Amino acid sequence: MTTNDWFWWQRPDLGYVNGRLHLQQHDLQTLAESAGTPTYAYSSHRFHANWRRLAEVLAARGVPHKLFFALKSNRFLPLLTFLRLHGECGVDVCSPSELLLARQVGFRESDITYTNTAVSNADLDVIARHPGIQVNCDALSTIRRLGERCPGRPIGLRINPQLGLGYNDALHYAGAKTTKFGIYLEHLPEAMALARQYDMPITRLHFHAGSGYLSPQLDTFERILVENGRFLSQLPDVTTVNIGGGLGLKLTADGHALDLDRWGDLLAAFAQEWDVTIQAEPGDYLIKDAGVLLLQVTMVERKKETLFVGVNGGFNLQPLSVYYQTPFVVVPTKLRDGEMQPTTVVGNINEGIDLWAENIPLPPLAEGDTLAFLNVGGYGSAMSSNHCMRGQFSEYLLLD
Amino acid sequence: MTTNDWFWWQRPDLGYVNGRLHLQQHDLQTLAESAGTPTYAYSSHRFHANWRRLAEVLAARGVPHKLFFALKSNRFLPLLTFLRLHGECGVDVCSPSELLLARQVGFRESDITYTNTAVSNADLDVIARHPGIQVNCDALSTIRRLGERCPGRPIGLRINPQLGLGYNDALHYAGAKTTKFGIYLEHLPEAMALARQYDMPITRLHFHAGSGYLSPQLDTFERILVENGRFLSQLPDVTTVNIGGGLGLKLTADGHALDLDRWGDLLAAFAQEWDVTIQAEPGDYLIKDAGVLLLQVTMVERKKETLFVGVNGGFNLQPLSVYYQTPFVVVPTKLRDGEMQPTTVVGNINEGIDLWAENIPLPPLAEGDTLAFLNVGGYGSAMSSNHCMRGQFSEYLLLD
Repeated sequence: MTTNDWFWWQRPDLGYVNGRLHLQQHDLQTLAESAGTPTYAYSSHRFHANWRRLAEVLAARGVPHKLFFALKSNRFLPLLTFLRLHGECGVDVCSPSELLLARQVGFRESDITYTNTAVSNADLDVIARHPGIQVNCDALSTIRRLGERCPGRPIGLRINPQLGLGYNDALHYAGAKTTKFGIYLEHLPEAMALARQYDMPITRLHFHAGSGYLSPQLDTFERILVENGRFLSQLPDVTTVNIGGGLGLKLTADGHALDLDRWGDLLAAFAQEWDVTIQAEPGDYLIKDAGVLLLQVTMVERKKETLFVGVNGGFNLQPLSVYYQTPFVVVPTKLRDGEMQPTTVVGNINEGIDLWAENIPLPPLAEGDTLAFLNVGGYGSAMSSNHCMRGQFSEYLLLD
Repeated sequence: MTTNDWFWWQRPDLGYVNGRLHLQQHDLQTLAESAGTPTYAYSSHRFHANWRRLAEVLAARGVPHKLFFALKSNRFLPLLTFLRLHGECGVDVCSPSELLLARQVGFRESDITYTNTAVSNADLDVIARHPGIQVNCDALSTIRRLGERCPGRPIGLRINPQLGLGYNDALHYAGAKTTKFGIYLEHLPEAMALARQYDMPITRLHFHAGSGYLSPQLDTFERILVENGRFLSQLPDVTTVNIGGGLGLKLTADGHALDLDRWGDLLAAFAQEWDVTIQAEPGDYLIKDAGVLLLQVTMVERKKETLFVGVNGGFNLQPLSVYYQTPFVVVPTKLRDGEMQPTTVVGNINEGIDLWAENIPLPPLAEGDTLAFLNVGGYGSAMSSNHCMRGQFSEYLLLD
């Protein structure tokens, strides 16, 4: 890797200025010094730019659309409030507590989609008390039990397209293997009969095939849209198709990105063919590259042939990458002079899997330095645990 | 699998009585009905029996010993208080917050061991305020910075035996590959020089090679004890050897168990050869099979060829098995008549990895039934997260 490659992640709003890392013109070393560590910092500008980018791709093609931020990816209240105040996006929720939180932040019921699996009666009781939210039913059992509570209510069907997408196989939610998600084509007649039994019009189709799809997977995405047609042709009341989330980002120097023009073209053709509004509920795509985690270097020590750099936070603060082996970027907030050397970055949890990065090139580091972990804005704080009682961190929304 | 095999996990204090699952004579169906779900229940009798079993194996062989419960495996306060009141075990902690919690529960400083990695200065400041706890240093950097704060204080050295142990490779914390854990033999002279520089006698050796070792791995355990000798022969002040935790349990019908007699014999010979007291700090071994998680069946539905049973809790309540692919047992609290059938048990989180058990034989189930997850007492509640805001659960200590 040349030094030039090492900086591949830089962009106008994220990079070094005089050797100090800046995000949205905030000096992250200064932030770490004032805020302490561990600290998550989120760029509101980048968050905003990310949803505007998607909306513009669809608007430019005349696609009727609405975006919903997947609240489960990040529920930091200032971030949700910022989103609400911009008024362009709704939120997607997946549990009663998330639904109530969205309402607490001031989201209107009509701007909330609810999609979940293995839904309980207790969940349905909460949904029933919110007649205006858009519920997508993932199983026949859900249709029946929702129907018992709310006959006549319009519903969405989460279907299973039997095709998966994502950064890797663990993130495919559909495919050759039968999964818990959604209603399969062969069960559609039963689903329709149940909905009819409770006078519930099926006005929306929903699918979510996985997380982290990139350009090479747009062929599969197109096939999924075709697969949707096999459901749509039987569902005359459907006016909206929710394509879930799962849009991926370029995560490594030589990794793929997502060709949004082609994505938009596919959706434009699909929306026109079926005369539907497109809903999307991205989470990670909107917040991942807007968020950084700042940790302090506690130890720099060579053990045998390996240079270990310890930091004051472990995988419990950002478990996503351990669950899914998805990459992120580790860089210092202040560049020291000296040659890059292979460095292994480890956390402070007594487990072997608490390994942030293995033999990555890093400039020299010293105890007390700050490392920034990039592309960790989604499923970081929201998914963190207090394992080893090491769960403390602060969060900052960068507004200016 | 014959029906007989299906019941392999039963033991005198855990099993069916008239078709209803009992733990420590508590009817778990009744508990689920009164407590609601999700609920963790812990058998105090089993917890007690587990530490007594280890202590007796060592006592029977005349091995001077002391046990410390690894608090990180379960920090439910009634459980810790119960342990403290019995007065036989100390606790092992790995963070300042855990240390303070142990003190809050009333554990004496002398009954607390502290072993951690990537230790920060903030951590060391808290340790310095607790002069009586037994600190094991995992790196040269820790010795130096502890020495700056507490010259003259006796310390332990966590060493890396370069041999790993555990249920599977992800749980090996030492081995051919260099890990972050402990001090390697080639760095021992530097460690001793640093300790001397700060007048800190090295009175204890500590190793932890991994988690979940069973009978077939006792040969490796023996080699680790031999490896310890290479350190001990250079460390005349050592009077105690802490063997960490990591003792494994039989987790499947055809799985291995741990031969405690051989384990005790190996330790007896080792303790005699080196004239040392043995410390052990098991966590999972003491609480794993004392704890069950109760979840309610929310959905029973065949999707294509697969029978899915949904429950009202996801992998965020018990992430251990997703991180490490370690097995547990899933059984109903009330046995319904009917044939066993292959059943896939799934949680209520919108992720493919939220899959409790795949195609396991289960008797017929219906919505509203309760499933008990066995062998989840360790690293369940303590490691849980509020992912999707599905983190709510209650915990019960069964005393009577």
